[in-house]
Amino acid sequence: MRIGPGKAALLEAIGDTGSIAAAGRRMGMSYRRAWVLAKTMNACFKEPLIETVKGGSGGGGALLTGTGREVLALYRAMEDHAATAVMSDMDKLRALMVDEPPED
Amino acid sequence: MRIGPGKAALLEAIGDTGSIAAAGRRMGMSYRRAWVLAKTMNACFKEPLIETVKGGSGGGGALLTGTGREVLALYRAMEDHAATAVMSDMDKLRALMVDEPPED
Repeated sequence: MRIGPGKAALLEAIGDTGSIAAAGRRMGMSYRRAWVLAKTMNACFKEPLIETVKGGSGGGGALLTGTGREVLALYRAMEDHAATAVMSDMDKLRALMVDEPPED
Repeated sequence: MRIGPGKAALLEAIGDTGSIAAAGRRMGMSYRRAWVLAKTMNACFKEPLIETVKGGSGGGGALLTGTGREVLALYRAMEDHAATAVMSDMDKLRALMVDEPPED
């Protein structure tokens, strides 16, 4: 498994909404798909990233564990570090491009 | 248009093989698809990246212009710089993962 933009966004959305279903809706994916991704992510790490909470007045929900928050922070740090590292190459590339490149 | 791994590989293959058709074959894409991508890349830059050569004993071919080689080198530099920049985050992430994570 690789963590990419989709899984990171799902992780973040679960943390924000407190619910796998609500996170899936925000991402435009089915509950089933969101649940499968959450289960796969949990299976890839020594400690689970997402914990589900059963019952309660809200009918249960989900939250990020400490490891889940750490993994999300590491992913966002990787994005920042990569973006910073390529900034000067990107500027050089942009300078060679036309102002309004065609789509695709 | 964004230059990604596919377009960079096509550019490199055109430089290596001296032919859009042969580059497309190496990438497992149709001649038509390779040709459209080459045309799109050329349209995105102030100077063309790929120059086609008509006729001759070999029946013509294609080569990378100076700008084409520069764009390819910048893309490869971006890959290297990004990989180096995320190395320490990636190590931390790997340390949290199980040894043999499931597929997907």
